[in-house]
Amino acid sequence: MGYYERHVFFCCNQRSPDDPRGCCNAKGATRVRDYAKDKVKKLGLAGKGKVRINQSGCLDRCEEGPVVVVYPEGVWYTYVDEQDVDEIIQEHLVNGRIVERLRI
Amino acid sequence: MGYYERHVFFCCNQRSPDDPRGCCNAKGATRVRDYAKDKVKKLGLAGKGKVRINQSGCLDRCEEGPVVVVYPEGVWYTYVDEQDVDEIIQEHLVNGRIVERLRI
Repeated sequence: MGYYERHVFFCCNQRSPDDPRGCCNAKGATRVRDYAKDKVKKLGLAGKGKVRINQSGCLDRCEEGPVVVVYPEGVWYTYVDEQDVDEIIQEHLVNGRIVERLRI
Repeated sequence: MGYYERHVFFCCNQRSPDDPRGCCNAKGATRVRDYAKDKVKKLGLAGKGKVRINQSGCLDRCEEGPVVVVYPEGVWYTYVDEQDVDEIIQEHLVNGRIVERLRI
């Protein structure tokens, strides 16, 4: 097993508001990433050998954003809000089942 | 294969200078990450199905930093300078061989 069992990266890139590409952070990425980090910690899932939640720079899937990627599987999701992230945490991080409805 | 063949995250966390834990960014992380991103692009390795270089928040291996992790393998490295990163790019990203001397 790797240093983290699952390493989760939320794209939190912020672009200029008039940039036509948009960006994950304009769609709530930092807020939802903070929520995920807190939730994983409260569930006792955080730490070495377990789960790490990180922010990252632009993951370059802007049109599909906001996006998050879970390694080592390399499974990508989009999400609308905290409820979607709750489902990713419970299903993927706890139960090891990919959430197909959010997968991109 | 995943969206990226290899996805590389450089911890670029910056802490207060008087924080005893230190941080990767105080050891040149952003500069070296910028170098890696540019080099990978120049080598024609960047893009979907190939390599993505990203910055990330704190990866929580501060004492061993500066650190970088390569997924999906989940191989972690430390580095001193651009020469070390050249070796990681050539050996790991191009040739698929882990650079044991830099591995943590």
